[in-house]
This record gives sequence, C-alpha cells and structure tokens, in this order.
Amino acid sequence: MIKHLLSAADLDVATATEIHDTAVEMATVSGREVKKLPTLRGRTVVNLFYEDSTRTRTSFEVAAKRLSADVINFSAKGSSVEKGESLKDTAWTLQAMGADAVVIRHPASGAPHRLTGWVDGSVLNAGDGTHEHPTQALLDTFTMRQRLGRIAGLNVAIVGDVLHSRVARSNTLLLHTLGAKVTLVGPPTLVPGNFGALTPDVAISYDLDAVLPDADVVMMLRVQQERMGAAFFPSAREYSRRYGLDAARMRRMADHAIVMHPGPMNRGVEITSEAADSPRSTIVEQVTNGVSVRMACLYLMLGGRA
Amino acid sequence: MIKHLLSAADLDVATATEIHDTAVEMATVSGREVKKLPTLRGRTVVNLFYEDSTRTRTSFEVAAKRLSADVINFSAKGSSVEKGESLKDTAWTLQAMGADAVVIRHPASGAPHRLTGWVDGSVLNAGDGTHEHPTQALLDTFTMRQRLGRIAGLNVAIVGDVLHSRVARSNTLLLHTLGAKVTLVGPPTLVPGNFGALTPDVAISYDLDAVLPDADVVMMLRVQQERMGAAFFPSAREYSRRYGLDAARMRRMADHAIVMHPGPMNRGVEITSEAADSPRSTIVEQVTNGVSVRMACLYLMLGGRA
Amino acid sequence: MIKHLLSAADLDVATATEIHDTAVEMATVSGREVKKLPTLRGRTVVNLFYEDSTRTRTSFEVAAKRLSADVINFSAKGSSVEKGESLKDTAWTLQAMGADAVVIRHPASGAPHRLTGWVDGSVLNAGDGTHEHPTQALLDTFTMRQRLGRIAGLNVAIVGDVLHSRVARSNTLLLHTLGAKVTLVGPPTLVPGNFGALTPDVAISYDLDAVLPDADVVMMLRVQQERMGAAFFPSAREYSRRYGLDAARMRRMADHAIVMHPGPMNRGVEITSEAADSPRSTIVEQVTNGVSVRMACLYLMLGGRA
Repeated sequence: MIKHLLSAADLDVATATEIHDTAVEMATVSGREVKKLPTLRGRTVVNLFYEDSTRTRTSFEVAAKRLSADVINFSAKGSSVEKGESLKDTAWTLQAMGADAVVIRHPASGAPHRLTGWVDGSVLNAGDGTHEHPTQALLDTFTMRQRLGRIAGLNVAIVGDVLHSRVARSNTLLLHTLGAKVTLVGPPTLVPGNFGALTPDVAISYDLDAVLPDADVVMMLRVQQERMGAAFFPSAREYSRRYGLDAARMRRMADHAIVMHPGPMNRGVEITSEAADSPRSTIVEQVTNGVSVRMACLYLMLGGRA
Repeated sequence: MIKHLLSAADLDVATATEIHDTAVEMATVSGREVKKLPTLRGRTVVNLFYEDSTRTRTSFEVAAKRLSADVINFSAKGSSVEKGESLKDTAWTLQAMGADAVVIRHPASGAPHRLTGWVDGSVLNAGDGTHEHPTQALLDTFTMRQRLGRIAGLNVAIVGDVLHSRVARSNTLLLHTLGAKVTLVGPPTLVPGNFGALTPDVAISYDLDAVLPDADVVMMLRVQQERMGAAFFPSAREYSRRYGLDAARMRRMADHAIVMHPGPMNRGVEITSEAADSPRSTIVEQVTNGVSVRMACLYLMLGGRA
Repeated sequence: MIKHLLSAADLDVATATEIHDTAVEMATVSGREVKKLPTLRGRTVVNLFYEDSTRTRTSFEVAAKRLSADVINFSAKGSSVEKGESLKDTAWTLQAMGADAVVIRHPASGAPHRLTGWVDGSVLNAGDGTHEHPTQALLDTFTMRQRLGRIAGLNVAIVGDVLHSRVARSNTLLLHTLGAKVTLVGPPTLVPGNFGALTPDVAISYDLDAVLPDADVVMMLRVQQERMGAAFFPSAREYSRRYGLDAARMRRMADHAIVMHPGPMNRGVEITSEAADSPRSTIVEQVTNGVSVRMACLYLMLGGRA
C-alpha cells in the first residue's frame, strides 16, 4: 500500500495498475443508485488549497464524500496563512486536528513533499508549482486504458506549454513507467530539451503536423493566457495556427486515436470546439475518471486496513 | 414528476399543489428531534453560484442535507470560470462528476435553461438575472396558503422595483396560475406596462395608498440601493415616503392582511422595523418555509423513485 | 446544563470541570478508528464568521462533524450582510432555517450576547472583538490540567498585548475561577491597570525576566503586526528583545513549566522557533485539545437530552 502520493515518479507498474483496477470498481459505485461506500466513515480529508482550483478541489471532495469521509475545505485565503503562518505551522494544525489525509495544491514545487515531514496522515499532491500533478496522470492513463485497451506501446503526443506544465511532467513520468512512448510537442521556447533527463526515451518535436499521424493519443495542454504576447509567442492567434488542434489537424490522426485535455479549455486557442466536442475527445470522460481515480487513491491510502 | 425547475410559468396547479403538500410533510421533519430523512443518501447536489447569495445557497444546502444528500458548493469565484471557462464546459464538468442536481444562480437570464441541455441531472433555478426565482414564488405562495388558508382569489400587491425583480416576475406568474389577482405597485419608471403580456390579468398602480385597503397580501420588494440617486428616484428618502411600508400605511390594510418581504431587507427604506416586525409580517416564516419548499422540490425531483 | 457559551465569566468550577471531563472522553473518540459519534445526527451547527479565522472555524467544523452534526459555513463575506443586513435579521434567518447552534466570530464585543435574544438555539462565542474567546480559555486550561495535573494553585503568566486580547481576557477570568494565579506581563501601553477590576487577584508586571522563574505556565500572546511601529512599541525587534520568548529566557523557567501560544504564531517576534518547538511547548496539543473541548461543549449544549 502507498502512504503518500507525491510524484508520478514514485509509482511503479504494480501500484499504478492497482489504482487503475480499483478505479474500475469505484466507477461501478458511482453508477449505482446509492453512490456511497462506508469505507472512510469517520475519516477526515482536508483540502488544503493555496491556489484556487474549484475543479480539482471539487473532484477530491466528491471522491471523499462518496467514500463517506468528512471533508474540510481549508482555503489559504483569509486564513492564518495570510497572517504569515508557515506551511509547517499550518501542517501541525491540521495534524493536531486529526486529519487522516491532506490534499494539497501549492504554488511552490516540493511543498507536498515537505508536508509529509509534518503530518502523520497521508499527503496527496493536487498540483505543486510547475512540478507535478500525479492524480491527473493517473486519470489520464486510466482514460487511455479504458479507450484504447492498453497503455504499453502507445504513442502519446503532449502538446503545448510543456515547460510550465505539471500535467505534462507527471504524465511523461507515468507513461514512461507504463511503457508508452511520449513525444513532447510545442514551440522551442516551451519544450525544454532537458526534459529527457527524467525519462530518457522522451522524443521532442516542434512540428505538430509531423507528429499527428503516428500518435495514438494527442494530449493538448492548457495555454496560460498570461504567457501570450510575451517572449514565448507573438500572439494567441499565431499559437493556434501552429499548435492548436482543429478539424483539419484531426484528419491527420489515425482513426482510433483520441484527443485529451486536462481542462479548463481555452476553446479557440489550443483546441477548437470541433476537436473538443468530437467523438474522439475524452475530455468529459477524464473528469468522470478523475473522481473514480481519486476515490481509488483515497481508498487504497486510507481504507486498506478495513 | 418534474425534472427541472426553471420558471414559475412551467408550474401548473397540480404540480405547485403537490410541492406545497410535500412541503407540509417536510416541515414536520424539520420539527423533529432528528431532522434528517435518508431519501437522498448518496445523491450529490451542487450549488453553482455565479453571484453571491449566502441566504439562498444556505437554504438549499440545509434542505439538501436534511434529505441526507451530499452538497458541493461550487462558487464561480476563483474557479475555472474566472479563467474563462464557459458555462457549457462547467456544466459538463459537473455532469461528469455525477451531479444529480445543479442549483444555479446566474446573472444572465436564461442560463438555467441552457444548463438543462448539458446535464442529465435536474436543474433548479435559484435566480437568473432579472428573469425568475421560482422557489421564491413557491415559498411565498406556500406562506400565503399557510397564513390565509388559500391562494385562489387573494388580492396580492407587489410593491417596489418590479422592473428588475425576478421575485416579482416569478410570483406574478405563479399567483396567476393559482388564481390570485396581482397588482404591481411602484414608480412608473420601475413598473413596466408590458408586464401584462405575461399575465393578462395583472393590474398596475402607482399609488400604494390606494391599493392597500383591498390587498390580502402586501409583498414588499428589496430596493437595490445602487439604483437610488439614479434616474429612477431622487433619493431613498423620497422612495420611502411614497412606496415604503410603515405603521401608518399598515393601518390602511385589512385586519387579516399580511406583509411579506423576500429578504434581505433595507430597514427604513422599503419597510420600517415596525412593519417588518409586526405580527402580520411573515418574513421569518418565509425563511422557514423556504427550507421546507426546497426540500419538497429536491424530494420530488430526485427522490421520487424510492 | 449550559445553554449558551458567551463568556468565561459565566463558567463556574462545576461547569468548567464537566466540560473538561467530557473533553477527556471526546479525546478517546478522536483516537479511535471511526472517529464519529452519532450524538448530533440531524442537528445543524452554523459557523457564522464575520472575521476570517480558518483555524477556529475548522476546529468547530471538525468537532461538529465528529458528532455527526450537519455544518453550514455562513461567511459574512459576500452575503446579505455585505448588502447591509443587520445581525438581528441574519440571526432570524438562521433561526428560521432551524439552526440548533450558532458559532459566532464577530468584530464587535457583545455581538454573541445580543444574538441570544434572537435565536432559540445555543450560541457559542468564537471570539468577539477584544472581549472574549471562552472556548480558547477552556482548551488552554484543559491543556494545563493535562500537562501539570491541576489548575488550582498554578502561577500563569500571560505575556504580550493583553489590552487587545480576548484570549487574555477569557483566560484571566477562567483561571481565576479555577484557582490559578495570573500575572499579566507586557509593555505598560498594552497591559491595562484596570484589568484587575474583573479579577481582583491579578498581578501585573512589565518585566518578563522577573516573572519567569515563578511561572508554571508562560502563555505567549500573538502580536498584532499592525500595531507595530505605532505608539505601542518602536519596532518588532524591540518588542522581541523585551517580551519575546527565546531559549535564554526559557532557561529562567522552572523545569516543569510549560509554554503556550494560541496560534497562529509570529515566529521570531513573540516567540522563537526554539521555544515554540521545544518539548515544554504545548502549542500542538492546544490545537488537538481545541477539537476535544469544542466537541464537549457541543455535546453538553446540544446532546444532553439523549
């Protein structure tokens, strides 16, 4: 059993597969009339969010409640954090209140790791800076398995602002572990050459059109609008022209290939509505699978004893 | 059974009466030692609020929890909505997470209706722009029935900024359906002449004093302070003098007639404390009835299968 | 049984001891695998916070949920309160919605007392202006009893901005009732001479070093940074030099003496990390005990009938 979930790099094949298999079972719970399991009754899950992310917080909240846990939303806004309290003192506070798990979103890379030194409960990284977002990688690979029947051997193109993307980083690491081949695609300023230091087999391309025909999965990343107009690209329009996914580009893809996006989308920038809403898009399934995968993580991390 | 609750215009006599009758039963639950029914255990109700309204959100939250549902508060503030996500994509996200009902408050008229195209669950309109607020009309008519024994045949005066009031609109529609006679009262700039297009029998008056003696119900609307000093009225003081309800005006009312207000009140503007706190005021009952009526709606919309 | 908890002055020895004894039982619940008691199932506890305090709100929320109550967080931010609604009308709203208990944090001293006139349920003061914070005093005295075996006869030094501290005020009152001797320590501008009017036996000192050798308990207060640089003290650095607790000052304390702080700390201002993290510090235990003591209060105030 795993104690914390900090990085996709910590997941071996057996653990990732156990989480995926458990998520399948959790999905059947979510489909029932009464969608609750009593597994985590009396356990307290704290959502400790130093950045706003209603989507991710809500996904964890739904997952925890479906397992009958009590959920405490501890937003850093307006809290003692704003009065200058350190992460350590906040951690001790949550620990002292009896948190069985802390789900943390933090702007600083490595914050979840430091948290593990200060709490007895489990820590789940819900996104730390530009570092990692491991449950996103777990739900994305789960979605690939569900749609394509396997992960090993897949060609996965991850497209966009790879440099600043924790989604790209966690997916690259987990996909490598699970035997998929990753190609990072984007403008040279946003696709770091040294990404390969983490996973030796990663390929890099600056030409989306060249990559599409061989891809089984095309994973579009969210464009951070605030980076537009800066040194990175001349404009959103120019970005779309070169790296946006539209109907014309989708026609270059293999028949079986799927389109993914972690959300929220900038429709018309990195992806057109025609691409986002097509049958080969898995964007909505990713959200559904997010709840199942997070239920599986909480179940395996907190409920294993029962 | 009803699937969505978008507009008071969709409610026929049978449906409104079923909701009212069910609310009577729900009120007995609320009065018990253990105020919970297990009906909606395992169901997820999402409060999707694009405008702040602690009162209405809390009323729905209490109602849902009393039926043992899980409640997720999804505030648009600080969410992906602020990152530019469309209502459609937010809707798909909630749908994908398994929302059984979405309670929506939105500044745009018609937003709840559009939402029904994007989610499988039930949609409850908790106020959309200047359009409608149907649960308010249901709780107001419930309160009339409770106090006066009937709705059909009542003379109801709705007083104030009718033009911008979704409370006025929903009440006018539902009261018309249930056989009451509505008189809209206020300054000419705020009482639209074409309101009658919706309900042919509505009367209009610019003279509150003339209307009071015949009214069974005097429903005061909240003054939007930001409209004061504008073209609409010279000042709050002038507004109070002409359209505010005070003790002197209450003496013009029939002995049995009641005073309503949806809250929150501007004491001293549209209503004096003497009027608000008098025995003929139903303002506190309206809040209590709000919980019962919203329990009834959720029960009938989500729990009918049991 | 107590109905409301407004002031530490209302607590006699028997009541405080009953709360402490009940908190011991509650602590055993918190240590179990399933940390929930069904006692308050179907009861609604409202957190009505007019000031941000994630710590205190969360502590009450955890306590209430561990007793199976439904918790409604009613923040004044963005609510009808901001639209100018009076405390009385908000109170009536909560009452009308069926709140069994209202936990209130308010900037105005006396607000919780006024609230008791407007709701039928129990009112718990979670901090009102510079007035009182009685559950803090209960958890602090509980911590003293747990660490030192008794409260009567202890010498307790309360150090810092006593003038503006509701923590100091509530502790002074309760400690006097329970037979401890209190010395208030701080700069003359921040230690009011007339504090003794409340509790005749309180001692006052402006010299921390002189007080330390005889103290069984040294309770450091949080420095309000916004008061620094004002007339009160020249600077945070000067404050630390004269009234901060550091390793050198700790060596002046008796071997058995403990260090307390209500949190959140300004490490390096009123307390150094060496002091805060030493084995004689009870700061983390205070948080844990906060949950147990608040469970005890809610249990005795709401659940006594069962």
